[in-house]
Amino acid sequence: MTDTVFDSLPTPSLLLDRARLSRNAERMRARAAELGVTFRPHLKTAKSVDATRFVLGDKLGPATVSTLKEAEVFGAAGFTDLLYAVCISPQKLHRVARLRQSGIDLKIILDSVEAAAAVAAHGKQSGAPLSVLIEIDVDDHRSGVRWNDRETLRQIAAALGDGAILTGVMCHAGESYNLHDPQSLAEAAAAERSRMLEAAACLRAAGFACPVISVGSTPTALSAPRYDGITEVRAGVYMFFDLVQVGIGLCGMDEIALSVLATVIGHQKDKNWIITDAGWMALSADRGTKDQAIDQYYGLVCDAAGKPYHDLVVLRANQEHGILAARPGSNAKLPELRVGDRVRIFPNHACATAAQHDCYHVLDERNDVTATWQRFRGW
Amino acid sequence: MTDTVFDSLPTPSLLLDRARLSRNAERMRARAAELGVTFRPHLKTAKSVDATRFVLGDKLGPATVSTLKEAEVFGAAGFTDLLYAVCISPQKLHRVARLRQSGIDLKIILDSVEAAAAVAAHGKQSGAPLSVLIEIDVDDHRSGVRWNDRETLRQIAAALGDGAILTGVMCHAGESYNLHDPQSLAEAAAAERSRMLEAAACLRAAGFACPVISVGSTPTALSAPRYDGITEVRAGVYMFFDLVQVGIGLCGMDEIALSVLATVIGHQKDKNWIITDAGWMALSADRGTKDQAIDQYYGLVCDAAGKPYHDLVVLRANQEHGILAARPGSNAKLPELRVGDRVRIFPNHACATAAQHDCYHVLDERNDVTATWQRFRGW
Repeated sequence: MTDTVFDSLPTPSLLLDRARLSRNAERMRARAAELGVTFRPHLKTAKSVDATRFVLGDKLGPATVSTLKEAEVFGAAGFTDLLYAVCISPQKLHRVARLRQSGIDLKIILDSVEAAAAVAAHGKQSGAPLSVLIEIDVDDHRSGVRWNDRETLRQIAAALGDGAILTGVMCHAGESYNLHDPQSLAEAAAAERSRMLEAAACLRAAGFACPVISVGSTPTALSAPRYDGITEVRAGVYMFFDLVQVGIGLCGMDEIALSVLATVIGHQKDKNWIITDAGWMALSADRGTKDQAIDQYYGLVCDAAGKPYHDLVVLRANQEHGILAARPGSNAKLPELRVGDRVRIFPNHACATAAQHDCYHVLDERNDVTATWQRFRGW
Repeated sequence: MTDTVFDSLPTPSLLLDRARLSRNAERMRARAAELGVTFRPHLKTAKSVDATRFVLGDKLGPATVSTLKEAEVFGAAGFTDLLYAVCISPQKLHRVARLRQSGIDLKIILDSVEAAAAVAAHGKQSGAPLSVLIEIDVDDHRSGVRWNDRETLRQIAAALGDGAILTGVMCHAGESYNLHDPQSLAEAAAAERSRMLEAAACLRAAGFACPVISVGSTPTALSAPRYDGITEVRAGVYMFFDLVQVGIGLCGMDEIALSVLATVIGHQKDKNWIITDAGWMALSADRGTKDQAIDQYYGLVCDAAGKPYHDLVVLRANQEHGILAARPGSNAKLPELRVGDRVRIFPNHACATAAQHDCYHVLDERNDVTATWQRFRGW
């Protein structure tokens, strides 16, 4: 039985289904084309040059990163058009400048007059103004200038002055992750669009060209009725999908490309528990489905071929132990799994689970491993 | 102001306070001596040869690991007496055997007749019987044979037969993490002790020597009234401590040695939010204080010198964003923090937060960084 690479993988290991990855990538590519916008994939989910090359092919077009380390690694791999989509702090400007000097067109974002003044001062001092987008808050999710706060928008643009190049506006419609029906998602995407157009119009009316209007989130990108006026869309988790995205209604279980391979190491039969060697160190402690209609606890359990068991979840996760049990409220019968048997676990949140591993073991159509793709991490 | 190594650290970064680490290590050493038991520290929290050498000094005595990778790394660093404290699966036996051939006395654990039969078969086939402890369940926490399940205990011992060396019994009293008063903790430690003695007595009565009785958990180790009859104690998180341990009542805030350095990148003033560049990627998604009397959300925020702000927590964590706010229910006034200012965040769970980083930046008494200690990960 241990005649394939898959059979001899140590556990826990991170698996990536190549065919699903291809289909997910093609779906978002087609979607961006249909919407008539540039696609700027977010590389923070995969954090792998190999995986990204596979997804994007030889065309290393625009991309998004969440850390300067990602900008450095992907820049060195040939991505020359990058957006660092986390507000800049003054201490990071020297690394941004160094990346730009190396030929990477790295754009930064900010959402305050304070940061704009620091960026402008840096640009004037260095003689090399940076390319800046103003982050817009379209849904009360996190960072950004509220889309209709015209005064702050104009103040930031003015503070940048000729110390920076104001390239446009961007947003992350993160509240879309809390939705779960097509109509609400389409409404969120429509609001995202109209609010971004309003913010850009404010800046344009004040004399700032604002050529780029960049929106982003997998849920809104897959749900937008139209993106007229928007110039680009960003998305990341669409490559792998995960249980949170299933709960939102954006994909099926058979589209989740990422899973964790685990081995059964014991049982507590009186409690109907099966114990595996994949705890939070392998799965992450992300509980992203907790408030969804179906709580998947620390992940949904599948057989070794990737077929989900009915209502079998990772109920608890310790560092190197995962406790499998029927989802509370379910009377599902547990599968017969013996010590040494293997299972696969679909993750709540692909970005978080992948981050716990150093590489992807890439599965082909026969469910064997034909490649290993390295990941990186750090800042 | 950027004249020290500390000032020029990129963020997020992982900080380790050397003086606190020393005091925490000394406290547990003294405690084990007071209890009259061998101390077998768990190396899964630090996962760093440098940190472990600092904590343990030149005396590389017994230690505990949670993965075979830890056994390989610490074994190569000179630790020759290791306990792998997660139940073994048959596929891992060849790695265990290889480690033992290299001179590491690596002991394994199991809690089923199935696993015992596989280990015995391996021992007979290879002619090199492995050293085994039976895991005992003393508190319904996770793995292990129930302490008073005499029949299963004897069956496992019999299944090992002469294919393995039955070295003893071990337990992890993990339910102690849910306690928060000295009396309950002392009672849990007393139950841990008496139940382990009962399990060992059962095996001894059946003719198995069972020389080792190993107990473990930071809460019970620090709370046990006595450990007569117990031969060794294991603990890991005591080195660093964390907010969960504060909530249990085992340490004060000024004993937490681990923190994450973060930089303010923005505000949402109408929501009383301060945004930093430390999200779950830097903090982990562990919410271990959620059910404690004081919920610390994703971590408690301190000033750059490590002094906690009153009721300021990381309310939400996205991948690379942390949202700081007053703890819900508190009317604490937020500190004046500007873009570029730095804060330190105490973690809920040191093991999980440290695992998100590749190294420790070690702080001396003047709060400057005088060393960098590498960490490793993987299985």
